[in-house]
Amino acid sequence: MEENKNKEKKEAVSELRQDIVSGDWVVIATGRAKRPDDFAKTERIKDDKGIEECLFEDPVATGQKKDVLIYHRSDGEWTLRVFPNKYPAFDGGSKEDISEGPYYAMPGNGYHEVIVTRDHWRQLALMDAMEVAEVFDAYQDRYLDLMNKKNVNYIAIFHNHGKECGASIPHPHSQLMAIPVVAPYIKLELDGAKKYHRSNRHCVFCVMAEYESKEKKRVVFENEDFIAFCPFASRAAFEVWVMPKKHSPYFERITDKQKIKLAEVFQKALNSVYKALNDPPYNFYIHSSPCDGKDYPHYHWHIEILPHTATWAGFELDTGIEVSTIQPEVAAEYLRKQL
Amino acid sequence: MEENKNKEKKEAVSELRQDIVSGDWVVIATGRAKRPDDFAKTERIKDDKGIEECLFEDPVATGQKKDVLIYHRSDGEWTLRVFPNKYPAFDGGSKEDISEGPYYAMPGNGYHEVIVTRDHWRQLALMDAMEVAEVFDAYQDRYLDLMNKKNVNYIAIFHNHGKECGASIPHPHSQLMAIPVVAPYIKLELDGAKKYHRSNRHCVFCVMAEYESKEKKRVVFENEDFIAFCPFASRAAFEVWVMPKKHSPYFERITDKQKIKLAEVFQKALNSVYKALNDPPYNFYIHSSPCDGKDYPHYHWHIEILPHTATWAGFELDTGIEVSTIQPEVAAEYLRKQL
Repeated sequence: MEENKNKEKKEAVSELRQDIVSGDWVVIATGRAKRPDDFAKTERIKDDKGIEECLFEDPVATGQKKDVLIYHRSDGEWTLRVFPNKYPAFDGGSKEDISEGPYYAMPGNGYHEVIVTRDHWRQLALMDAMEVAEVFDAYQDRYLDLMNKKNVNYIAIFHNHGKECGASIPHPHSQLMAIPVVAPYIKLELDGAKKYHRSNRHCVFCVMAEYESKEKKRVVFENEDFIAFCPFASRAAFEVWVMPKKHSPYFERITDKQKIKLAEVFQKALNSVYKALNDPPYNFYIHSSPCDGKDYPHYHWHIEILPHTATWAGFELDTGIEVSTIQPEVAAEYLRKQL
Repeated sequence: MEENKNKEKKEAVSELRQDIVSGDWVVIATGRAKRPDDFAKTERIKDDKGIEECLFEDPVATGQKKDVLIYHRSDGEWTLRVFPNKYPAFDGGSKEDISEGPYYAMPGNGYHEVIVTRDHWRQLALMDAMEVAEVFDAYQDRYLDLMNKKNVNYIAIFHNHGKECGASIPHPHSQLMAIPVVAPYIKLELDGAKKYHRSNRHCVFCVMAEYESKEKKRVVFENEDFIAFCPFASRAAFEVWVMPKKHSPYFERITDKQKIKLAEVFQKALNSVYKALNDPPYNFYIHSSPCDGKDYPHYHWHIEILPHTATWAGFELDTGIEVSTIQPEVAAEYLRKQL
């Protein structure tokens, strides 16, 4: 296989790799390949607002909405708080029919919350594993509280870091949107996982986790319970997935013990991206089963970390095929060096 | 309906609109709505490279590959030329098997060409209809030449304008990639169109074109043969689709007479976006049936124009649900004012 690969590099300028779950394609443009350390040099828009202007440093003083969750240190100082987004994309429970002619539409019912950690300067990539575990505690707490609410069929939990990745406020914060529809990307993965299971009698995510753990070449870090690796069909340079090794469709059922294991792997993975790319903008998000009352036995929750290293242009927007200029095997090797 | 809508605005902060073709969802966040003229003020990275440094001003002198097509004026000066991309994402015809373990992959065989118009300063939005028609001539010429080549199953034709939209060279140019797989976004649309036809015995795109032409509120411009409108489920502010009114699955079968009609509508649409958003970065691309030898009677080719007015952040990357902060009805009204 390795021999074939090296030979291939000389003959083709790129590889078309298929996402084993969704069936989507990506291009690994080896002919346009850059060296791993070239990705750190891209222009950056720096978040230069001072801490004095920060809206999340003292959320009460800046008129944010009332906390729905707050964690404290033993000395009484808060360490994490969650409150509804002041300008929500989803809110309320309107019953109106807003379809029109041949088109279907519904009110944007749901919840939109902000999860803020205490330290303005300490982004998740720089936290220690215990601090990261507390963030996952909050994700789970809020998930469990919202999952049974009326009109909530999917809960998206995501984090934007850096202006290019959509973080309008630099203070570290995640967001949670509880929405009435199953997200299209999740639907693609659910359908793909179901189809794979029908053909192969295995969870496709378990197959990935086992194969990667055995092969090692795309692994960034792993412990007994979780594995972080650059996916075979990476959509972006230095994309990393963090996945439980044991089959589990539902993030919200994670145990406290597992959360510590997850935090260890996630922290190592995110920190390696931070170092390798010199504090890049990034997004990460949890992909988990819908909470629409149905069972999803063949799904397998995981986290996707997507550093912002390129612009998706006409070809990507046109086709849905992302072009990446580094092989995930090379990216993973470089990320491991940062540990 | 209008009454309902106004009432709804007070109650819900957003609308979830479903793409009638793909089944995907978008959010029109009316609660976060901006005024149409607010979109023109976003920060821009300007392309400030001089014409002296331009790689496409004299492609022969800068060592571009040999032209595969060239159009001339009567005085001998070239007006448009097409040559293979110097750093192709797809090239050649390697036969190697590069799959690995459970994963499927194939060499990136195919063609990657650049379509360059003469004037460095005259972007497509500023051309007249006859100049635009010549660009469509070239798209069609190259499509017809490549569609029957071995390993070519889909041809993507797209245009990037502005750095934020991936144009690394500011000189106006489109690109064509002839690739071995059917693009995932096209597959979604093919499946959706087929499903809609099975249920409704109509082409879903014909239904859209007829409904929009009758309702007028989302129309930017139309003539007898083509219509430009902001789609009901716009994925971005000021997104515009240009569509033949008569059912047609295959762009490459357009007649010369239709091409003039297309150029008129497309030029008006793109120019209105240019004026409304003060020379924004944009992408546009043609969605047409695959050229894999199969028939696609229920598909309907069209062009999508996507101005860059926002960043797709964690929520969009997580879910595949794009959040837009202007209603397409409001965007279309504002675009019509620019005509």
